[in-house]
Formats: sequence, structure tokens, C-alpha cells
Amino acid sequence: MKIWLYDTTLRDGAQREGLSLSLEDKLRIARQLDRLGIPFIEGGWPGANPKDVQFFWQLQETPLQQAEIVAFCATRRPGRKAAEEPMFEPILAAGTRWVTLFGKSWDLHVIEGLKTTLVENCAMIADSIQFLKSQGRRVIYDAEHWFDGYLANPEYALQTLETALAAGAEWLVLCDTNGGCLPHQIQAVVKEVMAHFGGLDCLGIHTHNDAGTAVANALAAVQSGVRMVQGTINGYGERCGNANLCTLIPNLQLKLGYDCVTPEQLATLTEVSRHVSEIVNLAPDDHAPYVGLSAFAHKGGIHVSAVQRNPRTYEHIEPHLVGNQRRIIISEQAGISNILAKTSELGFELDRQHPLSRTILERIKHLESEGYQFEAAEASFELLIQEILGQRQRPFTLKGFDVFCRTDSRQLEVTIRSQSLATVKVEVNGEEMLTAAEGNGPVSALDQALRKALMSFYPEIAEFHLTDYKVRILDGHAGTAAKTRVLVESSNGRDRWTTVGVSANIIEASYQAVAEALEYGLQRSRRSQLSPLVAS
Amino acid sequence: MKIWLYDTTLRDGAQREGLSLSLEDKLRIARQLDRLGIPFIEGGWPGANPKDVQFFWQLQETPLQQAEIVAFCATRRPGRKAAEEPMFEPILAAGTRWVTLFGKSWDLHVIEGLKTTLVENCAMIADSIQFLKSQGRRVIYDAEHWFDGYLANPEYALQTLETALAAGAEWLVLCDTNGGCLPHQIQAVVKEVMAHFGGLDCLGIHTHNDAGTAVANALAAVQSGVRMVQGTINGYGERCGNANLCTLIPNLQLKLGYDCVTPEQLATLTEVSRHVSEIVNLAPDDHAPYVGLSAFAHKGGIHVSAVQRNPRTYEHIEPHLVGNQRRIIISEQAGISNILAKTSELGFELDRQHPLSRTILERIKHLESEGYQFEAAEASFELLIQEILGQRQRPFTLKGFDVFCRTDSRQLEVTIRSQSLATVKVEVNGEEMLTAAEGNGPVSALDQALRKALMSFYPEIAEFHLTDYKVRILDGHAGTAAKTRVLVESSNGRDRWTTVGVSANIIEASYQAVAEALEYGLQRSRRSQLSPLVAS
Repeated sequence: MKIWLYDTTLRDGAQREGLSLSLEDKLRIARQLDRLGIPFIEGGWPGANPKDVQFFWQLQETPLQQAEIVAFCATRRPGRKAAEEPMFEPILAAGTRWVTLFGKSWDLHVIEGLKTTLVENCAMIADSIQFLKSQGRRVIYDAEHWFDGYLANPEYALQTLETALAAGAEWLVLCDTNGGCLPHQIQAVVKEVMAHFGGLDCLGIHTHNDAGTAVANALAAVQSGVRMVQGTINGYGERCGNANLCTLIPNLQLKLGYDCVTPEQLATLTEVSRHVSEIVNLAPDDHAPYVGLSAFAHKGGIHVSAVQRNPRTYEHIEPHLVGNQRRIIISEQAGISNILAKTSELGFELDRQHPLSRTILERIKHLESEGYQFEAAEASFELLIQEILGQRQRPFTLKGFDVFCRTDSRQLEVTIRSQSLATVKVEVNGEEMLTAAEGNGPVSALDQALRKALMSFYPEIAEFHLTDYKVRILDGHAGTAAKTRVLVESSNGRDRWTTVGVSANIIEASYQAVAEALEYGLQRSRRSQLSPLVAS
Repeated sequence: MKIWLYDTTLRDGAQREGLSLSLEDKLRIARQLDRLGIPFIEGGWPGANPKDVQFFWQLQETPLQQAEIVAFCATRRPGRKAAEEPMFEPILAAGTRWVTLFGKSWDLHVIEGLKTTLVENCAMIADSIQFLKSQGRRVIYDAEHWFDGYLANPEYALQTLETALAAGAEWLVLCDTNGGCLPHQIQAVVKEVMAHFGGLDCLGIHTHNDAGTAVANALAAVQSGVRMVQGTINGYGERCGNANLCTLIPNLQLKLGYDCVTPEQLATLTEVSRHVSEIVNLAPDDHAPYVGLSAFAHKGGIHVSAVQRNPRTYEHIEPHLVGNQRRIIISEQAGISNILAKTSELGFELDRQHPLSRTILERIKHLESEGYQFEAAEASFELLIQEILGQRQRPFTLKGFDVFCRTDSRQLEVTIRSQSLATVKVEVNGEEMLTAAEGNGPVSALDQALRKALMSFYPEIAEFHLTDYKVRILDGHAGTAAKTRVLVESSNGRDRWTTVGVSANIIEASYQAVAEALEYGLQRSRRSQLSPLVAS
């Protein structure tokens, strides 16, 4: 049975606190969704802001491959004709085949929000749909606050749906706008709607996560006969978010046997989730179902040994079906079996009896008590193992560095002038090199000076760049003197790797992480010249 | 109807990737849970590591007020007697009234994991429970992998439960250990178990979030007759986490009418959630249902004006019931009505026609395009409004600062020696002050020098301290030269406030945030001397 997915990341998702999308962000996300096989992509409300208008125009020039891009707007305002409603001009100018029109289902909102009559609200729904259809548009009707409205006044709520259906809407989407419903309520109401209409194959569901059950609510609706599911990538959305499509799609397809996207598309889900989180500049939720970094990560000693014998014992699905992978975690709680599993994953041959296995475990526990964290910094972990095994070949040695920053503020509220300068001395193959560089800030100056020193020896460093830089204060009570952990993610354009540094001095911690990032990148380049690319 | 809550934050929650708890952390969390009214708190597995043994001893000396602290362990190993099982020694030494014993329900795990027979597994369950009871313990039986086991071999799975019940277990907890079940499966299986036993009032449920439905699964179980619910604060737990008690408790109590904690205890839920996230040193999930910072935040213009007229229109519950509060968000998407709502919340009288309303909106949009973010930095927002309204009284003016860091690395792998020095020149009431200070790092040196300069004018600064310090690279592609946003959270012991700074130079950005933190803190002190404490 086909379920029609409808993504509203670009509209409802963008209401999330802390999220703002540029035109370019919106276009990139739309193309990701298209490739994932989402049939309906809500692009925004043309007219509500200039960015949304441009977005639809850009897509007219270079259309999506498969997906229908949908414009979103409200019913006409009370007391005027839809044909004379200026709000519909940019909607029509957006040039989409489909328009999603939202209207009121809850008598409270009609009377208190719109300040109009229940009769006029129905007229607004009918007139708006008929007008859009007369202009060649196909209409999806979003019944806003459906569940609250139905519980308050079921007859009136049903009347708004009947009106939309009679006016020519092709989908009727039941929205839990305030997000407070629980699955049993959704199920009961959907069943009553189905019974009222004597069965309907054009019902949709739109849920929010205010009770922590957005996904379960959507599933309950589908299991009661709904055929369209609205949600967002990573569950972005106002307040507690919308139903998370990255959870819903595998639940529907792998667990309940519905047909949403192709298996090949499903296998890109993890990538799409992470790519979108990168575009919107929000840290991915490592604990997200199916697509999170930790979703198939094993920490406890018992789990690790069992899952290696038979994955089914501790994994609810095979991670590759959604493009994710199993991970063995290195941590303070780790037993020796985790260490061995991890080192073997990295290609080191060690067994339980090897005296260095115990040394590695103890060294990790000590460093973690100092504030290091290797769970997220696998490149630093690998360098550490090499070091303990006597296999680490340091491509350079730091002799010392100086950093100087000066800021002058000549006048009140005038832009501050500042300069940052760093000098670095390193040794490579017995040769000392002293360099100096300026930067926008101290870490950048130091990074520049270090690269400058190393570039003459290792020109491939030109390809490496920092893709993320995170700072965490480890003991907030110590204020600005607290120990700082820096995580640096680097890329050479193909691979990514993460390194860690810890110090009370943020420049020092940054240096450690940047220096290890360069060292690891150099190893990586040499390895890829020798053998096919190894995934990290 | 009473639902018995059972918290496993200290045991299953601690399996979360990135989380590690000190003995002190565990004790602080246990006391939080006790005050929240959780009747059963699983403290850990005494014997598995020295920390857990000490934890139980400490609680023997200074017991909890209300809660039962529970020790957790496995059934005895195959082929020996429970009375001779050394694993039970530290369990008994922990001195708890209750022990939670977990055993295998899934034939696959018995045969492949334990490498024993189905008969011996039942003997292990019976013998372990009887032995613990003979030692005066009351026993909760956790049926591990219950749902997978029941689906694979229902007769055997039921036989393990019958065994545990007959041996004297007082609770039988059905665990979805791999977390892949959906609510309809949980419901069906729980109903079959109830039917098999002809009704049981001692069933419990333990769910994980691998399908994104941990909370809904627990609700489905309760609605099918289960009376104990296991979960963790903030849903911490292995992989995708456990059922989140901060979501479950209000769902059970406010929406389904079950009796879990007192209304007064429920009103501390948000505080407990945030306090625990602070103890475990993980950023709180701002989008968490009920307790998240954004759970009752309104961003869209339509929502904001409606919710102010009638909260019920856009809020599923009253935020104060769980100790949370409504927030109006300032953002790029904000219309003028958000700005007015926010400024009025801060005590500024402005209306839509006031020319400065438009100025504020434009200034915010400009600063946000530069990388500032006021959603999280309300103190900086308030200073900005004061500035635009001509009401900002700067307690000091920066004239300039220098920062110098030197790091020497004399020998390979020898601890690096480093020093950081800062000089600051400020003007207060026409008087210039030049100070110098050393610090553990450049930001700390600068912070020290600034405080030193201001302390003679404003001694109350001694009370302020930094409680969090966050750094975010705004454009990762620019590497270490990228623009950096610093958020600083400060406290004077009673209130907290957050300020923001943006610059490519991390020291510069930190200075902005620290300087505004001190300015805002000084305002706060003066205000609280004049009037009773205003909540921020």
C-alpha cells in the first residue's frame, strides 16, 4: 500500500527556534528531498516574505526531478471574494501545480481568531478552493487544529471537511496543530472521520511533538486508514518539532510494510538527515532513531560481544537499510572487549592477553578523567593507539608558539580594530622551521603559521580544511579559567575526521586538535595513495 | 489509578554515548529524583564497578527521603547455585530493600548468549529470586528482550514470567530491550500476557526509543493494564535513549488522569530536567516536550497575537503545571508583534506606531545577518533595546586590550609549559584604569584583568560567575578564520542571564559577551536592591 509523503521542512520546519534558512539553503534542501523520493515538498508561503517568492521562481527555472513543489497559504480573509484576495496573487505567480490551503476547523479559532462566523468560515474554505481550482491548481486542504476542533465541536469540524471535499480539495489533512494529542485519540478520531464519510482514501495527517508522540500519532493515523503523512527532516518544527520523517519512513516501510520510497532511496536516509542538519547549521541529533550516530552504537561490554556474534540479538533492524552503520564505542565504561573490537575495526591485531590491551584501556580512562573524549574523536583515538603500539610516526614536532592579540577601541561604539599574530617553531626530519602569520583571531593566526611551516614539507596540507570547531567548557564553575575541550572536524574533500584537544588555555587545546588533525590527514593521504579509500 | 514510576537514569541512562557519571553526580541525581517523587530509583549494578558500590554505601549513611533505591543485577550464571554466586555478594552488601533482577525471555539469547538450555535459564530465574528473597530482599523481575522473545517463542517467554512470579518476584517488567517495537505491538502483547495470567496488577514496562516511540509504547502498555513504568530523565540511554520520564509523567498525569506524583512535584519537572542535564554536563534539549526551553515558545506572528489573547488556542497544556513558561521569540522571522510582545515582557512601553519599533526590528535583522543570535541571549537583547531607546547606561567603556600567550615544548611528549597574560584599559566615570592579569588561558586572563579593573568601582562583581561558555563557528568552510559566536551564561547565585558576542577573533567575541554579562549583572544588582527579584 502506497503512503504519500509530504515534507514541510521548508515551511513548518523553519519555524523551529534557532533555525533560519537562506534562499540557497532552501534550494539545497529541496533537491535533497527530491532525491530522497518525497513526492510533495512544501516550499513556503509565497508573499509572506520575499525569500519564498524567489524560491519558487528559481524552481520554475530549474525544476525538481520528481517531486511536486507545493505553495502554502491560508483561506481568503472574511468578507471578500477569493478572486479579489491579493494574498492569492503571489500564490498563483509561484506557478506550482499544487497548493496547500489551510483553514480553520475549530469553532474557537473561527470566532476568537478570525473574528467571523462559522458560516463565513465555511464560505472562505469553499470559495478559496474553488478559485484556486478555477486557476488550474490542485488543492490539498490542511484542516488546522483538526483534533482540538473535533473534540470541541465535532459537527462543525466535520462540516468544514465536507465543504473542502465538495469544493474540490484532493487531500484532506487532519492537523494536530498544538501537538498535544496522544495516539489513542488520533486513532479514535480518524476512525470516526472515516466512518462519517463511509471511507475515504484521501485523508492525510500532520502531527507535532508536544506530547512526545508525533511519530506514534502519525502511525496510528496510517493504521486507521490515512494515506498521506506530513512531517519534516529531523523533526524540525516549532516548539517541540513536527513528526520526524527520518523516523517515520523506516517505521512505515521496514516495520509496517507500506510503500514510501524505493529501497535505494531509503538507504540514503542517514546521509539526507545529516546533510540537511549541515545546511541548516544545527548539530545533528546523535541519538535520533535510525539515522543518529549512536543509533546502532554499542557501549556495554555484554552487548558488544553478543552483537558481534549475531547482530539480531541487539539490533532492531540492519543499519545499512537506512544508510547507517554499527559502531563500537570507546569510553570510560568500556571493557577490554570494546577496546579490542575498536582496535580490530581500525586494523590493529590485538587480543585479550596482549599486555598492551590493558595499557590502552588504562591510558584511555586516564585521559578521559582529564577531560578528553574519544567517542567523538576517532582520529585522535587512532593516533593514541598507534602511539601505544609504538607505530606512531610523527610528521612534525612542536618546539613552541607565541600568540599576540591587540584590540583598540578608540571611541564609543566605533568598530573595534584588532590584530592577531602568531609565531610557530616546528621540527621536521631534524630541520627547524620558524614561521609567523597573522589571522582574524588567535586560533586562525596559529593555524596559519603552523600550515605555513608544514606546507613546504607536506604540500598536500593545502587540501585540508576545518569543517567544524567545537568548544566545551568542562567545569563551568571555574568560569573562564575552566578546562576547555576543543573538537575539530577536518576534511580533505572526500573524508572527514575528528580530533580533540584539552587544556585550560583555549589556544593550547585548539593547537592540539589542529596539529593532530594535520597529522591524521597526512597519514590518510599516504594511505589512500597506497590502497583504495578506507572509510573512517 | 496509581502508576509506579521507576527511574533508571543512573544505570540504563548512563549507557548513553557521551555521558559519564561521577559518584557525586549519581548522588545529586538520586536526590533530585527523590524530591520529584519517583518511588523507585535504580542506582546501578553494585560489583560491576567500584563507583556503584560506593554509591550504595553513601546512601546507607544518608538515606533518601521517600524513594526506594534499587540494586540491579543479572540472574546467577548457569550451572551453579545462587547461594554460591559471588555476583550476589555486593548486591546484598549494597543493603537495599529492593533488587531488580534481569533474566532472559528470548530463547535465542538463552542459547546463543548464555550458551545454556531453556530449562536451566528458568532454573536460574527461580533460584536467583528465591535466594534474594531468602536474604530478605523484595524482587522486581526485568524480563529482558521480552517482546522480541515473545514474538519468537511465546510459550517459552510466558514460562519465564510464570517462573519469576512463582519464585516470588513482586513486579514483572516487560522490556523492549532493542527498542524496535511499535505501540500496536506492545498493546497486543501486553493484552495477551494479561489474558494468559487472567489479569495481573504487577506488570511493568521498560521501553527504548529506537523506533522513536518509547513514550507511546509505554503509554500503550499502561492503557493495556501495566502499573509500573520505567524510564529516565531526559530520555538518556543507550543508542536512541530510554522512555523519557519528563514526557511520560505529564502525559500520564495531565492527559490520562493517572496518579504519579503530586501536583507540586510535577511543577518541579522542568527544573529537575534542566538540573540533571547540568549535572551530567549535556546541553538540555531545548525542543523536549513539556520541559524544553522552546516547548511553549511562539515564533510565528499569527501564533503570537492569538496566544496572547487566549493561550488555549495554541498551547496544549498550561506551562506552569510542569514548571515551564511561555516565551515569545525574537528572530529574523519576527514580525513587529513579536518585538512588541517581547519588549512589553521586558517592561518597555512601545506600540506598533512608535518609530523605534521599526528601528528595533531592522537592527535585529541586521545583527542576526552578522551572526548574532538573540533567541538564546536575552540579556544582550535587553541591552540592545535599552540602547535603541536611549536608556542604556554603560557602567564602563573599553579603551583597548592586549593578550599574549606563549607555549614552550622543550622535549617530545613532555608536558607543555604555557603562560597567558592580558592587559585591559577601561574608563569608568571619566577615570581610566589599566590593569594586567595572568590566566590559565587568554580568555581567562582577559576576564581576570577586566574584573580587576572594574572591581574597585563595582565590588558586587565578585559575586558574578560564568556558568556556561559556548562557541559556535558560523561558517565552517572558512576554517579557523571563520566568524565565531560566543554565548556566555552568567549567574550571581540566584539569577542567570545569557549574553552573546560575534567576531572572527574568539577572544574579541568572548570579550563582548563577558563585558555585556558584567554590564547586565550590574543592572540586575541595582534593580534587585530597588525592588523584589524579577524573574528573567
